[in-house]
Amino acid sequence: MDTPSRLPPSLHEALTGRFGTRFTTSGAVCEHHGKDESSHAPMPPDAVVFAQSTEDVAAAVALCHAHKVPVIAFGTGTSLEGHLLAVKGGVSIDLSQMNRVLAIRPQDLDATVEAGVTRKQLNAALHDTGLFFPIDPGADASLGGMAATRASGTNAVRYGTMREAVLATTVVLPDGRIIKTGTRAKKSSAGYDLTRLFVGSEGTLGIITELTVRLHPLPEAIASAVCAFPDIAAAVDTVIQTIQLGIPVARIELLDTLSIRAINRYSKTALREAPTLFFELHGSPAGVAEQTEALRAIAGEHGGMDFEWAHRPEERTRLWQARHDAYYACLALQPGARSITTDVCVPISRLADCIAATRADLEATGLTAPLLGHVGDGNFHMLILVRPDDTAELEKAQAFAQRLAERAIAMDGTCTGEHGIGLGKRKYMAREHGEAALSVMRAIKQVLDPLDLMNPGKVLPD
Amino acid sequence: MDTPSRLPPSLHEALTGRFGTRFTTSGAVCEHHGKDESSHAPMPPDAVVFAQSTEDVAAAVALCHAHKVPVIAFGTGTSLEGHLLAVKGGVSIDLSQMNRVLAIRPQDLDATVEAGVTRKQLNAALHDTGLFFPIDPGADASLGGMAATRASGTNAVRYGTMREAVLATTVVLPDGRIIKTGTRAKKSSAGYDLTRLFVGSEGTLGIITELTVRLHPLPEAIASAVCAFPDIAAAVDTVIQTIQLGIPVARIELLDTLSIRAINRYSKTALREAPTLFFELHGSPAGVAEQTEALRAIAGEHGGMDFEWAHRPEERTRLWQARHDAYYACLALQPGARSITTDVCVPISRLADCIAATRADLEATGLTAPLLGHVGDGNFHMLILVRPDDTAELEKAQAFAQRLAERAIAMDGTCTGEHGIGLGKRKYMAREHGEAALSVMRAIKQVLDPLDLMNPGKVLPD
Repeated sequence: MDTPSRLPPSLHEALTGRFGTRFTTSGAVCEHHGKDESSHAPMPPDAVVFAQSTEDVAAAVALCHAHKVPVIAFGTGTSLEGHLLAVKGGVSIDLSQMNRVLAIRPQDLDATVEAGVTRKQLNAALHDTGLFFPIDPGADASLGGMAATRASGTNAVRYGTMREAVLATTVVLPDGRIIKTGTRAKKSSAGYDLTRLFVGSEGTLGIITELTVRLHPLPEAIASAVCAFPDIAAAVDTVIQTIQLGIPVARIELLDTLSIRAINRYSKTALREAPTLFFELHGSPAGVAEQTEALRAIAGEHGGMDFEWAHRPEERTRLWQARHDAYYACLALQPGARSITTDVCVPISRLADCIAATRADLEATGLTAPLLGHVGDGNFHMLILVRPDDTAELEKAQAFAQRLAERAIAMDGTCTGEHGIGLGKRKYMAREHGEAALSVMRAIKQVLDPLDLMNPGKVLPD
Repeated sequence: MDTPSRLPPSLHEALTGRFGTRFTTSGAVCEHHGKDESSHAPMPPDAVVFAQSTEDVAAAVALCHAHKVPVIAFGTGTSLEGHLLAVKGGVSIDLSQMNRVLAIRPQDLDATVEAGVTRKQLNAALHDTGLFFPIDPGADASLGGMAATRASGTNAVRYGTMREAVLATTVVLPDGRIIKTGTRAKKSSAGYDLTRLFVGSEGTLGIITELTVRLHPLPEAIASAVCAFPDIAAAVDTVIQTIQLGIPVARIELLDTLSIRAINRYSKTALREAPTLFFELHGSPAGVAEQTEALRAIAGEHGGMDFEWAHRPEERTRLWQARHDAYYACLALQPGARSITTDVCVPISRLADCIAATRADLEATGLTAPLLGHVGDGNFHMLILVRPDDTAELEKAQAFAQRLAERAIAMDGTCTGEHGIGLGKRKYMAREHGEAALSVMRAIKQVLDPLDLMNPGKVLPD
């Protein structure tokens, strides 16, 4: 049953007329669209439109624009920085029904999808083509959402992030006009790079409704491995040397002792409880064999123990399932806890220093926070476990997270490697970019969305 | 000797006061700064400032801004689309004295340079680090100029273009303020991607004065090869299959029969006069051996002949020197001619069609135009040879070039893969991007450079 609408009556009427039952002000639906996987308290929109085409999105955006009502794009709700929260109310445009794979072009190694297609759905559609879409942020997020937050994940060290993956987009502008950015050419020097401007803009400049992404040939051979180290520094040094030697690892993930303990409990594994690297190698059989030997040698030099290789698909799946379950495994360390998840990324030469300083800081706070990350890129997360009702602990955790973000920025890194700015990290924007660069971002926002209707209250500080 | 200045006297005085002999209105110097390697007639600026620091650039830009006088950045003068021409007069800011390599960080595989550092200079500075900077547009261009035009070249199929290579920049804005974009983190989701906005903006939004670029480990083994084919389609099919199988070729270049004939004459080589692919493979010795065999098999399936491998550095150098000399070799086919150089890029599945249609078109025109290109990316050039005083031939060549650009755009490609828009390709912008997307570019230009002082008359059509 619809609750009384907080939208202007004429907008309510127009949206009802255009979308029928695909427009709703139902409290439950709005609740669902006003929260994500962050620790921010939910802020529901006033209404939700279920779009089924770019034209639907354009119509909804144009109507909201005419009524000066905010719009927020919604994919799968798995964002991590409060991106979806309707801080100024307005209409959430749910793109999950825009889930058609529009074209797969094996010859060109690209595919065009609607924004609501998830990465797993795309990979399922690629079955039998010999190709795959490598970017894997953990959650089965929508590709539109992944583009909007410039997502990446475990494979980025080899295959890049959404910045590299997106060739072209269809975007609905704040006034409802539809544009296309980029072409299917692999490279172009034709004017300003609008594709890269919309990728990572978190729905604040427009809504990505379709995108063309690069695909990659499935590797002939894959090998996965786990290796424990006497300490984190040894693991990090192994990573640095691997990258420097140009070994084309597809994944290289660090988990600290506490994360491994959590995984052992949660996934019933029997990994040595020590700082551990998870590797994956892609290539020809001979290439993978060569990389395997090189990695074994590097890890050995740094005291790597129990080097365990998994060549068979089911072994690999078990291994990576454990890695992917790490988030839930860590949460289970402290029943009832939720996690404040940090996401810094630093130049790899600073990674060991950054981790060491952060662990010392953590110890002083008494907080519990397993560490894991995509260390081949210098990107790591800490899951700070907090009891939702313990205000003092929450404040302590937030202060710790802030010191970590500032430490990363001071090391010429970033406050977010892959989660985005959303609501919570706007406070770091000036420090990371400087006021003058921030003023350029503001100018772009101002000229493209002068009424501040596109996901207001996100990315740019007030 | 200085010619009478066309600048406002107070600006002339201020620039003289700030820069002394590094400011000049000398006719010869202005002439030199008003032309590039395109076929556009030169248009000299009114004055030239030789900058030695970001602060110099900022001071010159701020003074010009205060006097509403245009500024144009100048690197090595090797642009190919009239980028440097002072269509509205103004001050050329020569960055060639900003040629310090500021930092090389082998652990992070990155380097920070002033914009005037050339790619060969950077690679010389990398000697002994085991690293190299792969992007090679042919000319020994400045890295600032390469970033501004989003340059690429032979290695892009493996290592990407300047879009992927640039991690961070220092930019002087149109009003003289200095900003930094990006950080040294390999990835970030922190706000709008200003780095990618300035890369490829051709000096129309600001002047890049410093940049941090990614480096790559020198491959352990390199092999080069030349292989002739019975026809262009067979060569292109070889390329498509190579890319689809994920063979990580570092270079894969196509030259048509006429280009090979030109090279044989110019470089005293004895290559079979047939459509030819030049390959380069990078990797471990075993990896390169494996790739070599795979390539030989693919080429064999398509009638490849005379497969000739060069493993020793001097053989490789000879081979690639011939490829690099192709431009001058082609010009020498018709003494006194100059070249109108096209630069389309299409999805690789359309490459054979695009080339076939273009060759049929060429034949109908009676023009002479060798074809060569970075076909692994779907990017190819035709060097249309014209006699500078033959107006009818020039018009015919321009019409042919226009049909080629439009053909590429119709095939979901781009009118420029790597040379940029500059002056001459603005007429294709609306067709390639659509009026609505173009209006977004105009809005960005308008808000960042409201007085239209940064390289006016470039990129965006009037």
